[in-house]
Amino acid sequence: MDRLEAGAAVEIARQKSGVSWPDLADLLCRSLVWTTSALLGQQPLTLEQAQLVGDKLGLDAEVVDALTLPPVRGARAVDTSEPVVYRLQEMVQVYGPALQRLIAEEFGDGIMSAIDFELEFERKQDPKGDRVVLTLNGKFLPYRVW
Amino acid sequence: MDRLEAGAAVEIARQKSGVSWPDLADLLCRSLVWTTSALLGQQPLTLEQAQLVGDKLGLDAEVVDALTLPPVRGARAVDTSEPVVYRLQEMVQVYGPALQRLIAEEFGDGIMSAIDFELEFERKQDPKGDRVVLTLNGKFLPYRVW
Amino acid sequence: MDRLEAGAAVEIARQKSGVSWPDLADLLCRSLVWTTSALLGQQPLTLEQAQLVGDKLGLDAEVVDALTLPPVRGARAVDTSEPVVYRLQEMVQVYGPALQRLIAEEFGDGIMSAIDFELEFERKQDPKGDRVVLTLNGKFLPYRVW
Amino acid sequence: MDRLEAGAAVEIARQKSGVSWPDLADLLCRSLVWTTSALLGQQPLTLEQAQLVGDKLGLDAEVVDALTLPPVRGARAVDTSEPVVYRLQEMVQVYGPALQRLIAEEFGDGIMSAIDFELEFERKQDPKGDRVVLTLNGKFLPYRVW
Amino acid sequence: MDRLEAGAAVEIARQKSGVSWPDLADLLCRSLVWTTSALLGQQPLTLEQAQLVGDKLGLDAEVVDALTLPPVRGARAVDTSEPVVYRLQEMVQVYGPALQRLIAEEFGDGIMSAIDFELEFERKQDPKGDRVVLTLNGKFLPYRVW
Amino acid sequence: MDRLEAGAAVEIARQKSGVSWPDLADLLCRSLVWTTSALLGQQPLTLEQAQLVGDKLGLDAEVVDALTLPPVRGARAVDTSEPVVYRLQEMVQVYGPALQRLIAEEFGDGIMSAIDFELEFERKQDPKGDRVVLTLNGKFLPYRVW
Amino acid sequence: MDRLEAGAAVEIARQKSGVSWPDLADLLCRSLVWTTSALLGQQPLTLEQAQLVGDKLGLDAEVVDALTLPPVRGARAVDTSEPVVYRLQEMVQVYGPALQRLIAEEFGDGIMSAIDFELEFERKQDPKGDRVVLTLNGKFLPYRVW
Amino acid sequence: MDRLEAGAAVEIARQKSGVSWPDLADLLCRSLVWTTSALLGQQPLTLEQAQLVGDKLGLDAEVVDALTLPPVRGARAVDTSEPVVYRLQEMVQVYGPALQRLIAEEFGDGIMSAIDFELEFERKQDPKGDRVVLTLNGKFLPYRVW
Amino acid sequence: MDRLEAGAAVEIARQKSGVSWPDLADLLCRSLVWTTSALLGQQPLTLEQAQLVGDKLGLDAEVVDALTLPPVRGARAVDTSEPVVYRLQEMVQVYGPALQRLIAEEFGDGIMSAIDFELEFERKQDPKGDRVVLTLNGKFLPYRVW
Amino acid sequence: MDRLEAGAAVEIARQKSGVSWPDLADLLCRSLVWTTSALLGQQPLTLEQAQLVGDKLGLDAEVVDALTLPPVRGARAVDTSEPVVYRLQEMVQVYGPALQRLIAEEFGDGIMSAIDFELEFERKQDPKGDRVVLTLNGKFLPYRVW
Repeated sequence: MDRLEAGAAVEIARQKSGVSWPDLADLLCRSLVWTTSALLGQQPLTLEQAQLVGDKLGLDAEVVDALTLPPVRGARAVDTSEPVVYRLQEMVQVYGPALQRLIAEEFGDGIMSAIDFELEFERKQDPKGDRVVLTLNGKFLPYRVW
Repeated sequence: MDRLEAGAAVEIARQKSGVSWPDLADLLCRSLVWTTSALLGQQPLTLEQAQLVGDKLGLDAEVVDALTLPPVRGARAVDTSEPVVYRLQEMVQVYGPALQRLIAEEFGDGIMSAIDFELEFERKQDPKGDRVVLTLNGKFLPYRVW
Repeated sequence: MDRLEAGAAVEIARQKSGVSWPDLADLLCRSLVWTTSALLGQQPLTLEQAQLVGDKLGLDAEVVDALTLPPVRGARAVDTSEPVVYRLQEMVQVYGPALQRLIAEEFGDGIMSAIDFELEFERKQDPKGDRVVLTLNGKFLPYRVW
Repeated sequence: MDRLEAGAAVEIARQKSGVSWPDLADLLCRSLVWTTSALLGQQPLTLEQAQLVGDKLGLDAEVVDALTLPPVRGARAVDTSEPVVYRLQEMVQVYGPALQRLIAEEFGDGIMSAIDFELEFERKQDPKGDRVVLTLNGKFLPYRVW
Repeated sequence: MDRLEAGAAVEIARQKSGVSWPDLADLLCRSLVWTTSALLGQQPLTLEQAQLVGDKLGLDAEVVDALTLPPVRGARAVDTSEPVVYRLQEMVQVYGPALQRLIAEEFGDGIMSAIDFELEFERKQDPKGDRVVLTLNGKFLPYRVW
Repeated sequence: MDRLEAGAAVEIARQKSGVSWPDLADLLCRSLVWTTSALLGQQPLTLEQAQLVGDKLGLDAEVVDALTLPPVRGARAVDTSEPVVYRLQEMVQVYGPALQRLIAEEFGDGIMSAIDFELEFERKQDPKGDRVVLTLNGKFLPYRVW
Repeated sequence: MDRLEAGAAVEIARQKSGVSWPDLADLLCRSLVWTTSALLGQQPLTLEQAQLVGDKLGLDAEVVDALTLPPVRGARAVDTSEPVVYRLQEMVQVYGPALQRLIAEEFGDGIMSAIDFELEFERKQDPKGDRVVLTLNGKFLPYRVW
Repeated sequence: MDRLEAGAAVEIARQKSGVSWPDLADLLCRSLVWTTSALLGQQPLTLEQAQLVGDKLGLDAEVVDALTLPPVRGARAVDTSEPVVYRLQEMVQVYGPALQRLIAEEFGDGIMSAIDFELEFERKQDPKGDRVVLTLNGKFLPYRVW
Repeated sequence: MDRLEAGAAVEIARQKSGVSWPDLADLLCRSLVWTTSALLGQQPLTLEQAQLVGDKLGLDAEVVDALTLPPVRGARAVDTSEPVVYRLQEMVQVYGPALQRLIAEEFGDGIMSAIDFELEFERKQDPKGDRVVLTLNGKFLPYRVW
Repeated sequence: MDRLEAGAAVEIARQKSGVSWPDLADLLCRSLVWTTSALLGQQPLTLEQAQLVGDKLGLDAEVVDALTLPPVRGARAVDTSEPVVYRLQEMVQVYGPALQRLIAEEFGDGIMSAIDFELEFERKQDPKGDRVVLTLNGKFLPYRVW
């Protein structure tokens, strides 16, 4: 059983047991996005964290072990043509050039880190239809000149 | 002269004249991200908007005309391997699965729109190094069942 | 057993039992296209819906469970080089530019939604050979300006 | 000047002159979708048709000549990542499997033609937001057995 | 067991039993190319046809059942870099432009159908080395103008 | 001017002058398919052949010179997604496996040559709609064993 | 067990038993390259040849049977990014244009066959480091003109 | 003018002047393959070498200058789908696995260099049709262990 | 069990037993990078080396055997979109052109070998955050002129 | 003139004038690799820096201006199949997995930065053939947990 299969097992157990992602975030004392990402396989988990989740969801020992394998963060972790993910992909395509220039003007030559990075997920009530609000927060890293 | 070439011409004129992206946003009474995206070629501009920018930056009539061409929003608008853009791409790859599940749990079967969508760019002061904060705000759209 | 395998199991059971797709649509009180798409794996099903279909077709409990997994809507759900699907693909290629301009002229800057979307399938009698008629009905979504 | 460049010239002249796509369809006594598709370069035009359009829009002789070149219907005619076109692409991805099975059940082994094919574009009023309605009408072609 | 695996099973049984492809074509009262294509998985077979072949070759019931699954005609059915198939691929590449123009001149705007299509395979004796002769026979389909 | 541009110039001159592809084949005393293929750029032409065609069509000296450049037979010579060419591509996909096995059974281990190869194009009258008949004739080449 | 798996089984048995590739070539009375290529899966083997090798290496009957399956010569037979193979790939890239012109000048319009083809592998002693010498010997095949 | 365009200019001048590739190899006192490869753009030339060739072929100063630019050895230097080059590509595909194993057995862990490498081109008379013989001679380089 | 699966087994056993990569390098008397690379599957191991590691980590005989299979060095050995590996990939992209010119100027026409190559991994203390230092050391190989 | 064309102009002027890359590094008081990378187009230059280089090499004002355009760091900046660059690419492929694990063991969950990054190029004398030594020095960045 690899890390992504462990993530699938978590999801099935979670749906059957009625435990929500926020419940699991509380259990691990981590944010909602980090916790979900970790349990699906994109962040590392300690044996203690895996055990806590395993007890809560009634997971097999094999799944708990697999949750402690190294995270899977390459392209095979996600199908970018899945409709929800594709809209994010399209956002990169449509707004990427503007963000690239704005960072250069405001901060200078460098990037917004995807490592020293936080991502918050919120629901915003709106009478015309509720909205998904994602806040991406990454450290600016200047290119080194030597 | 196509729309992307007009965007390049804006950028060169802007750098030479010392007009900032926020100056241009003020001129058009639009947000910073929308304005930058529009002038680079990813949003439509009216002839009045193009003329305002043309006067401010001293653009040739040919550039002003080209700014009113339809927007270019396909994959050729951006090189996703450019380092700044790639970090956003990696964010989609690493956090896409978590966001897909969180939207499904919180909102039900549907997507976060990339059309009824706003994107805010901010600099956040931080003693360990300032941070780039992007706020993505898209309407939730439920899949229709019929 | 994943969602696509459950779809394959439905199809085999359906062929053996002589139950048609319209029979299944009637059973679920949904349209023909939505029902077929859902049972093949591209729309979500509740446990009740899955159970109804399972009873009708005599499916194993494992298949019924798998029918309640999240839908699979990414590129791996379909082989676009399959001849029937390819003709739709070619339609997008040949008529895509015209549709893009017509939507822009008639509705303004925006898209036809693939989420708030219905698709109807009909057979139209014709003495020169019957015809397949597909009606695509999607909400216009204007690009947000902010 | 190739056929796609002639299509771009038509579009610019059309916008400047305020002639709509329906006006051009009336001029050629053809449907709206066929006319738009033809003038953008995906259908053949006779010299008479090209001349009619040229007179209406005040096109150069070079553009009129180029409009009579063979149509361009391959993949380079369209950028499938353009947001409007991509939603059609996603429709093929999400509903392709269902359509493939429904055609097989209703008509037998064969395809829906993309050649003996009509496409109608309509705006449908809706209080929750107007809708784009596309009607695809293609002859069923059975696979030959020999 | 899927349709392609059934095709592989037919081929092994055929080689062991010494039954030739023409023998099987005679059994099914179909042409040589259609029969071979159908048994490898690219054309549909009725249960009666599958049973006839199963009796002749001593196939397991599982293989006979799998032969009645829908045909597999997408890109995964063939490796176009296989040397025999590649020469056909190269023929399309080298002679495709000429055939496209010749069809346009002789028949008008349209295509040669790959659905209402027959393919004959023959060996032609030649003192300098025998030759493979393939006759492709497809209905001309004119593009619809509406 | 490269070889493909010379081919485009031939085609335009041919359409304007009303000279057909068979006329040009007669002029060069070659078959219809070879002649068309050569003038579009996929076969070599001698200076004498290029001059004959140049005189007939009134081509510039530059075009005549370019017609004697080496042939262009790689993938860039053709867009395999063009609808006429794609049907040939689909034929390779659907019938490639059958042809590969039939050649192996009838001739032994080897290929049908795409070099020692002829291709004939014919129109076949048919009351249900005329048909395109292509005859591919290639020498069998056995794999060498050493 | 498919043909490539049979090749892997041969290699493991060969390494354990200490039988070299030249030993196997002697056993089959074939050249070293042909024998290695055949046992890895790229050339056909008769049952007698497979049996001879099976006896020598102590292969299971299943492996011997699989060695008689049709050869696998498509792109999946080799990973061209493997460092040894890649150097050959780079040779094609760097010297391909020169070889294409030299064949055209010396032999006329045609190709060097990869079917009526032999390949010899030799070690050449050299005080500065021994060298690998590959001799590729293929029949020239002229393009047919008709 | 870049290096590949200079190569094209050499070839045209060479054909018009009747100077053969062996003549040019003699002029530069280099082998036939190296000389052809260098003049087409894949090897570096000194100004003296470029001048010698320029005098012989009557090249413009601009071409002579461009011949001294750095060599172009990446993938864009060659179209591997060109039929002559493709046969070499297919040789890599079909014989690559065997060569990889034979080098490992005979020399140990390492590669055949494509840099310390020579390639000889010869015509071999044969009553059944002359043959192209290519001799590839590359230094064996052992992987370093540290 | 193939070579990459053996590498995965080593890693799991190593984590459970608390044996570090430097411990294993000491055991094999090889450098840290070579040892890690070899145990993950990219370098060959003798039976003695595999046995030493197997004893230390308590590996099954099957894993020890699999560790002696040929190394896997092609593209499938690594996912270049994994974030750690991607930064190296980006370094090649951003600094590749400069390194190509600097090698040409300093050494002449040739390459830095990836075969006669060593790679050292070090941690460098730094008050602003420790640094990873990689030293790549490859023999210069001049292109042969002949 | 874009940034990459300016880089090509620098290189030609540099070769003609006999100015070396180290000379230019001294002129800009920057390291050799950074300077070369910047002048080829992968790092930003101030107008002062561009002017200094322009004076030294006698560049046109247009080139000097173009040197101040934003850097080009995406995939189009380099052809990874160029033989010198490819060896670095192969290094990533062969040693990427080992480096990924070693960083994780030594530093914890994170990456080696390609932004806060230095690269040193050196020639190391060696009696068996001089060596290229590249020292890559990047800050370790830990993944943020929140």
